[in-house]
Amino acid sequence: MLQQRKITLDEKEIPTHWYNIVADMKNKPLPPLHPATHQPIGPEALAPLFPMALIEQEVSTEKWIEIPDEVRNFYSIWRPTPMFRALGLEKALGTQSKIYYKYEGVSPAGSHKPNTAIPQAYYNYKEGVKKICTETGAGQWGSALSFACKLFGIDCEVFMVKVSYEGKPYRKVMMNTWGARVHASPSDLTNAGRSILAKDPKSPGSLGIAISEAVEVAATHDDTKYSLGSVLNHVLMHQTVIGLEAKKQMEKAGDYPDIVIAPFGGGSNFAGITFPFLQDKLVDGKKVRAIAVEPTSCPKLTRGEFRYDFGDTVGMTPLIPMYTLGHNFIPSPIHAGGLRYHGAGAIISQLLKDGIVEADAINQIECFEAGMLFSRTEGVIPAPEANHAIAEVVRQTKQADKEGVSKTILFNLCGHGNFDLSAYEQFLSGKLIDFEVSQEDINKSLAELDTPAIA
Amino acid sequence: MLQQRKITLDEKEIPTHWYNIVADMKNKPLPPLHPATHQPIGPEALAPLFPMALIEQEVSTEKWIEIPDEVRNFYSIWRPTPMFRALGLEKALGTQSKIYYKYEGVSPAGSHKPNTAIPQAYYNYKEGVKKICTETGAGQWGSALSFACKLFGIDCEVFMVKVSYEGKPYRKVMMNTWGARVHASPSDLTNAGRSILAKDPKSPGSLGIAISEAVEVAATHDDTKYSLGSVLNHVLMHQTVIGLEAKKQMEKAGDYPDIVIAPFGGGSNFAGITFPFLQDKLVDGKKVRAIAVEPTSCPKLTRGEFRYDFGDTVGMTPLIPMYTLGHNFIPSPIHAGGLRYHGAGAIISQLLKDGIVEADAINQIECFEAGMLFSRTEGVIPAPEANHAIAEVVRQTKQADKEGVSKTILFNLCGHGNFDLSAYEQFLSGKLIDFEVSQEDINKSLAELDTPAIA
Repeated sequence: MLQQRKITLDEKEIPTHWYNIVADMKNKPLPPLHPATHQPIGPEALAPLFPMALIEQEVSTEKWIEIPDEVRNFYSIWRPTPMFRALGLEKALGTQSKIYYKYEGVSPAGSHKPNTAIPQAYYNYKEGVKKICTETGAGQWGSALSFACKLFGIDCEVFMVKVSYEGKPYRKVMMNTWGARVHASPSDLTNAGRSILAKDPKSPGSLGIAISEAVEVAATHDDTKYSLGSVLNHVLMHQTVIGLEAKKQMEKAGDYPDIVIAPFGGGSNFAGITFPFLQDKLVDGKKVRAIAVEPTSCPKLTRGEFRYDFGDTVGMTPLIPMYTLGHNFIPSPIHAGGLRYHGAGAIISQLLKDGIVEADAINQIECFEAGMLFSRTEGVIPAPEANHAIAEVVRQTKQADKEGVSKTILFNLCGHGNFDLSAYEQFLSGKLIDFEVSQEDINKSLAELDTPAIA
Repeated sequence: MLQQRKITLDEKEIPTHWYNIVADMKNKPLPPLHPATHQPIGPEALAPLFPMALIEQEVSTEKWIEIPDEVRNFYSIWRPTPMFRALGLEKALGTQSKIYYKYEGVSPAGSHKPNTAIPQAYYNYKEGVKKICTETGAGQWGSALSFACKLFGIDCEVFMVKVSYEGKPYRKVMMNTWGARVHASPSDLTNAGRSILAKDPKSPGSLGIAISEAVEVAATHDDTKYSLGSVLNHVLMHQTVIGLEAKKQMEKAGDYPDIVIAPFGGGSNFAGITFPFLQDKLVDGKKVRAIAVEPTSCPKLTRGEFRYDFGDTVGMTPLIPMYTLGHNFIPSPIHAGGLRYHGAGAIISQLLKDGIVEADAINQIECFEAGMLFSRTEGVIPAPEANHAIAEVVRQTKQADKEGVSKTILFNLCGHGNFDLSAYEQFLSGKLIDFEVSQEDINKSLAELDTPAIA
């Protein structure tokens, strides 16, 4: 007789609707502002960048938005994803608590990112868009969008942060295999890129710079739209398929989480797994905790300021109400490239301000220790981003054991680390280091902002 | 309404028994011979290398062998694996035929290899073995065994073919992450390695040499056993979980294959998907075809000789009845490292001789063309080995369309290509080349053999 480890769903159980948490929020997220006038912008201001269907989703307050059949059809390439009871990790920790994880690394691109790449490509395709431009850090998002665009016959152009372009060549080949063109950013193809290169010809690039480049290309070409892999409301909503499936799977397991944990970069991963559980909290008063885990070296949630800021470095995007370190903040070169972003999305920032969600910050050595333990007890070698969630799980089980209680913990294993093994090599050879960020640096970065404060 | 793409099974449907095709073969495989005396060897001759439970499986004629709960428990980390209808590929080919594939790349090691690594580690663990030694080519097998050994707390030592050790450094890190020690082969740690290095200090290594090194370490250390990832009867039998699941999944899909296709290296991948279907052919006379696909540059099945030969290069293993190119044959450096082996296992060689299975040989450019088409229509970027199966699927659908018939085709997508993207880069940049092997070279390699012929 086997103890249940894997909880699967049938293809028919792929969710039929995305969950829009805005409908259940007492305090709605504040509106985005025009970068020049600082007045709330309407949907039309976003039209040069996004197809109308996605703009409608961005501002929607409908609770459930139907997933088109064409999207569900492609979701079935890898969805529903499996959920696991982490029996090996529990045993190794000697904990009384129960640990579950949802595994999103089974997608062709190896992470949760295709959950939004597919619908974004689909709505662009429906509105006749011929090309989509985007940015990518370590390459997870660029891979996902390349894959999605190929399925719908759309051209894809990716600005990849130069340091990753050079350090993770296989991610680039993966995007090429799916037909995308990839440029190292900053590039000389855009005004934004050229302006950065003029100041610093050896710039290693950043996510904020790459966003500026991709937005510029989309804004200046009629047949080209822009696509973002996190932060925005519609992106977070698409990711709720993760949590919606996980709820069904917890039900099948006869369980319900006390704590739901995910890494935090721009918020899509965290939103995906937690929002469907937060629905129970917002609507029914369920006592579920949701913990976002960020790197100590990029601590916008735990040490940032809640105010308006740009989504990119050059300052081309609308102003978003966010917990931010300032859009000029350059995070240290940790391996979790997907978490090196200065701000958080509007919805999650509001939820954090209102005490609905919590945040914790963890250094990378603690994260890799947790990731190693996970690899050796559960099999999958996690992406460095995912290691942040695992490290928090370890913290929470220790806390519970200390208090003599058993908690049920669910986390999102958002991707595998097959493209991040150089980071594990560093860890194994004792060369991995931690980065601290001083309060002075944060204050300085925030002091540079001339964007509106929030009362 | 969605067209069904993914056919899943529940954890409870992981097979409870392995299928041993020997029980149903009219002509049983010939016995292995002692390398010196050329007399059939008994089980005791294998005792220095393998635990007794595996030796019993190696010589068993029982039809069904129960899978221990401990093994099924770890199988559930990734099994049952999904089966897919290749809707995107069918559409791109414009074929009347139906294409299904079983996807084994969802395992932590990224291929089908853990299906036998887990039980091999388990039986060694049960008999108190402290260390297992093995070889690996491109790294699929070494990764799988490292993972399995870590789960059972056994030390693992891997001799990795030098050219891959240098060219695929992330595979090495993956093995290290799971706690294994990895050496480039030929090494100066064994007599076998030193003898090769004495002749050629710059030897790039080969699978045959690496096997010699691993066997030597196991044979000369009391607490150490050896483990092989293919070729042997018990290894092939462990892989039948693939085909047993696929049969259930085809039934769920309301279908049955006319043709089952898999790549062929030593035979474990091919045996895994085809043997449970061949049972229907051997027992009930079902007209299912099983096609093994080898690289044109290593054509033992289509151009080799059926005779006794060594499993390794130095000549330390028992003599096995096999289709072989000669154990000194050095295959060209194609990217499908897992298919660069001079011989085939005893069971499959007998089945080929008896006309129960078929073989085809395909060059690597045709294989990568098929793999690219698959990536762009189905998502997953396949391992170079798996591309051989896909290329054969393309050939078979074209043939069927020419004949105006619809075939139902099933193939084994044995692994993903996340560690093989340099090969895709070569293909995309037009630098990939084909290798031919002359009849003269094959004849010369076979003429060197002084091993027994088979009447």
